[in-house]
Amino acid sequence: DSARRVSGSAKRTLNAQGRPNILQVGMRQSPWQDLYYLMLTIPWVWFFVLTVLMYVGTNGCFAIVYLIGGNNLTNAQPGSFWDAFFFSVQTMATIGYGAIAPSNFYANVVVSVEAMLGLLGVAVVTGLTFARLARPTARVLFSRVAVIAPYNGVPTLMFRTANRRGNQILEARLWLSLVRDEVTEEGYTMRRFYDLKLSREHTPVFSLTWTAMHPIDADSPLYGMTSDELSRDNTEIVVSLMGIDETVAQTIHARYSYIIREVLWNHRFRDIFVDTLDSKRAIDFTRFHDTFEIEF
Amino acid sequence: DSARRVSGSAKRTLNAQGRPNILQVGMRQSPWQDLYYLMLTIPWVWFFVLTVLMYVGTNGCFAIVYLIGGNNLTNAQPGSFWDAFFFSVQTMATIGYGAIAPSNFYANVVVSVEAMLGLLGVAVVTGLTFARLARPTARVLFSRVAVIAPYNGVPTLMFRTANRRGNQILEARLWLSLVRDEVTEEGYTMRRFYDLKLSREHTPVFSLTWTAMHPIDADSPLYGMTSDELSRDNTEIVVSLMGIDETVAQTIHARYSYIIREVLWNHRFRDIFVDTLDSKRAIDFTRFHDTFEIEF
Amino acid sequence: DSARRVSGSAKRTLNAQGRPNILQVGMRQSPWQDLYYLMLTIPWVWFFVLTVLMYVGTNGCFAIVYLIGGNNLTNAQPGSFWDAFFFSVQTMATIGYGAIAPSNFYANVVVSVEAMLGLLGVAVVTGLTFARLARPTARVLFSRVAVIAPYNGVPTLMFRTANRRGNQILEARLWLSLVRDEVTEEGYTMRRFYDLKLSREHTPVFSLTWTAMHPIDADSPLYGMTSDELSRDNTEIVVSLMGIDETVAQTIHARYSYIIREVLWNHRFRDIFVDTLDSKRAIDFTRFHDTFEIEF
Amino acid sequence: DSARRVSGSAKRTLNAQGRPNILQVGMRQSPWQDLYYLMLTIPWVWFFVLTVLMYVGTNGCFAIVYLIGGNNLTNAQPGSFWDAFFFSVQTMATIGYGAIAPSNFYANVVVSVEAMLGLLGVAVVTGLTFARLARPTARVLFSRVAVIAPYNGVPTLMFRTANRRGNQILEARLWLSLVRDEVTEEGYTMRRFYDLKLSREHTPVFSLTWTAMHPIDADSPLYGMTSDELSRDNTEIVVSLMGIDETVAQTIHARYSYIIREVLWNHRFRDIFVDTLDSKRAIDFTRFHDTFEIEF
Repeated sequence: DSARRVSGSAKRTLNAQGRPNILQVGMRQSPWQDLYYLMLTIPWVWFFVLTVLMYVGTNGCFAIVYLIGGNNLTNAQPGSFWDAFFFSVQTMATIGYGAIAPSNFYANVVVSVEAMLGLLGVAVVTGLTFARLARPTARVLFSRVAVIAPYNGVPTLMFRTANRRGNQILEARLWLSLVRDEVTEEGYTMRRFYDLKLSREHTPVFSLTWTAMHPIDADSPLYGMTSDELSRDNTEIVVSLMGIDETVAQTIHARYSYIIREVLWNHRFRDIFVDTLDSKRAIDFTRFHDTFEIEF
Repeated sequence: DSARRVSGSAKRTLNAQGRPNILQVGMRQSPWQDLYYLMLTIPWVWFFVLTVLMYVGTNGCFAIVYLIGGNNLTNAQPGSFWDAFFFSVQTMATIGYGAIAPSNFYANVVVSVEAMLGLLGVAVVTGLTFARLARPTARVLFSRVAVIAPYNGVPTLMFRTANRRGNQILEARLWLSLVRDEVTEEGYTMRRFYDLKLSREHTPVFSLTWTAMHPIDADSPLYGMTSDELSRDNTEIVVSLMGIDETVAQTIHARYSYIIREVLWNHRFRDIFVDTLDSKRAIDFTRFHDTFEIEF
Repeated sequence: DSARRVSGSAKRTLNAQGRPNILQVGMRQSPWQDLYYLMLTIPWVWFFVLTVLMYVGTNGCFAIVYLIGGNNLTNAQPGSFWDAFFFSVQTMATIGYGAIAPSNFYANVVVSVEAMLGLLGVAVVTGLTFARLARPTARVLFSRVAVIAPYNGVPTLMFRTANRRGNQILEARLWLSLVRDEVTEEGYTMRRFYDLKLSREHTPVFSLTWTAMHPIDADSPLYGMTSDELSRDNTEIVVSLMGIDETVAQTIHARYSYIIREVLWNHRFRDIFVDTLDSKRAIDFTRFHDTFEIEF
Repeated sequence: DSARRVSGSAKRTLNAQGRPNILQVGMRQSPWQDLYYLMLTIPWVWFFVLTVLMYVGTNGCFAIVYLIGGNNLTNAQPGSFWDAFFFSVQTMATIGYGAIAPSNFYANVVVSVEAMLGLLGVAVVTGLTFARLARPTARVLFSRVAVIAPYNGVPTLMFRTANRRGNQILEARLWLSLVRDEVTEEGYTMRRFYDLKLSREHTPVFSLTWTAMHPIDADSPLYGMTSDELSRDNTEIVVSLMGIDETVAQTIHARYSYIIREVLWNHRFRDIFVDTLDSKRAIDFTRFHDTFEIEF
């Protein structure tokens, strides 16, 4: 039974970081083909290390090519790797002090090749650096728990989201799904998705907080179910938010998942809107995840 | 009672600049994490000041590093900060006159580091400069007041918008909401949103002006309400416009809010379409906010 | 009566190039604020002329600044404008031959300023150049006339569009509107839009041609109307196409307008699909605008 | 009859690579106007060859211009093409060693022109290089066959798709169409599209696999049809998938087409979800295209 509970937790569709909780086997991986995607998504420290390695490596290669051609750089010590290396740096970065300069046809050809490759390479690396910076990312906060409480008499599933950036998310849209294991008439087990209707699923501008509400009426797959019944089928409630970030005018996305033990029956969220002393409205985010039990 | 009116005005959801009128308390601010967003949104003068400070600061640091290594620059006065500083400028900007040049291993290594950081740094700063220029912004004008007047016999809420750019806004869409304070059956006060249906909410191309019309029929939350009743619940009418800017092919957005005292009962907008002397059509924007009272 | 016809043609909402046919009066123009938009949309020849003027002008200004500082450039003829000008070019473009080089503090400071402004300026101009190239533009062809012919027994308005680029337009969507002058019960004349329903308004992929069809059934504003009745109210049929260009992954848009005399009653388009000798399908675009009269 | 079958196969709307299977005749091709599109879509090897040719060609032209002006480069051998060529390379790439430098007005003017053109040209080429890298491409796998099998008692058309990238496709949407030849009442043959309704056509996040299901109920154009009847009209089932790539935040698209002989009646896909030894879920892509016959 303990193993079952562990397996149940392992079957959660999204992990805590919102990534799929499933391995891939037998998919032909082609990291080289997807190098651009890789360079966009590796951590900054790896990106920087790779950039330095490429910079040093390429200049090292060109230094060797200059040395192979013999004594062909003015003012460079014949056969000196470092003189050739630093000359290569000055050429690739298009500094060109001229203290060391190509002195024959061979060196000039290599310089011409290095200049072209250098310009393209610098464009790609600096383009990648900026593309990484400019990648739109959502900083959306979801309440750690969802609650079920009556709203105008109807039991309603509620959770809160907040835009942690100071800016606005345009044309924001929320999707709420219930995922559970099911067995078809033909005897096949499948993990199926059911949409949970929200009383408000779209907002033209989402700038502060949004309390999503799903009324558990006769149409809801949650209607009349107990916490125990839901736990049995590895039920999970998956939230997905999409909108356009106002600052960068690009689509952003966030998602979250509540397992059944994170849904609190007969709880309500604490109010986060407070009035300041000078009678302005304020939002107190320290209470964002706070709930309290209600009595009937 | 005067305090109440002030508080009512303070509870307006959007302020005059269309930003939320609410403070945030207890949200962990992380300006460094959102540095990119910050650099995109600070005023130009601050952006320029920061760029100059970074340019001077970085070159100052490299100048000190060159000086620490001792007498290592050809033609530079030994120990001269300014010779080292200007050499650094010529290196980082990849000018490299060569009048001053690195003369030993130490200086060459520093040059190699500075060249790489310089290329990346210049890419980020110039990328930011261009991204700031290219950020899509809406220049949409809303009439300062909304009016209510009969249209084909039905009382209709109307306001005008205009695209102040000469270009076209594609797939433009308007949302109109009524926001007011409400108390649920369970006794909780909430600020709720109601959609106000527009007789035309979408247009494939929005290039000049658009008069939005909400018929106040039996389905409208405004049906049968007086100006006084609306004022009581801090009612506000929020407009939101979204579309794709034809010139830059990116999503733009504009919003506006009318409080009840900005909605004029039994008024009509003055016509802005005029015929010029050579019988061409023209729009006279000097009349854009003008209304006149109508009689029955 | 001839004047009326001229006025009717002047009231066409879109002109032949698909731009609005209306002047703007009294709108405060702010060309400087919208300089970016201007630089994106002026013709290439003007863009190039402006770039050259700015390049020559800026270098001319810096040349004067160098001259003002007196004899401060090594190897430059004292007081020579052109030596200072060419030195400025070599600095701004970060070439820095070093044949001419700054020889004192004043010149070095000016070089530092010019290097920074040069890098930013080059970034903006080259960014603009690329943004102009990369602006997504639709190359969509509309048939010069629309026709009305029975389709499965129902009279149907049809016109043809074709994607003139070799690529694909994704999630393409067509809107068809009828625009005509109308007088409200209250006596105001307005130009109103009516949507004309298409039998297929969306296609996941639009790569070759698309024949749009609007069935003139009882729900259509065109139902039972004659060509003469339509002409009376300056009626016009406006088409708008939007989709995502597969190659550049950006939204593109095209529009066209048919006045009533461009709608041919009881005509049909010639077939453009032909079978080649090796029994492959081909499209013959030379017949794209061709129609023929049908008999009953 | 064999010819008919060949022609039937030739009439497939999309070929194996998902491109339209139709030639274009009489469309005025304008490769120069669409040069930007061309440079984005030609293979990398051609792009690289063109870049090298342009680089060598432009520098060659400038070399000739320098030579025409006579003896105007310091340290260059008078009349030497290669000295002028390498000087041009050092100028265009803004290296500027200064070993060779312009020595008179003529050369300085040419340098100024080359510097400006060089900066713009490098911006365009490096911009193109990065734009090619950054073009969003879908790596979506479709099962090689579709199957028809009962699902909860209803015969259901199914096929599988998988996102071969490790990332997520946001707001993914599937369209399924049936395309077949038809003759209208008026006697015209047309290739018509019918939408096939999917039991789930949208998913907020598509990260691993998606089994699309079209229930063949009374509303389906496939209802009650046999494989033979479908083959007669060159019937084809076209799939189209669109969504937003999470990594690059741009719209991506994939499509596939099943001809009738690729639809397997009374088959089912093999399960690809497996449990690993440490009771984690995994997907085994080696079974992705595998089906097995079912019995009743």
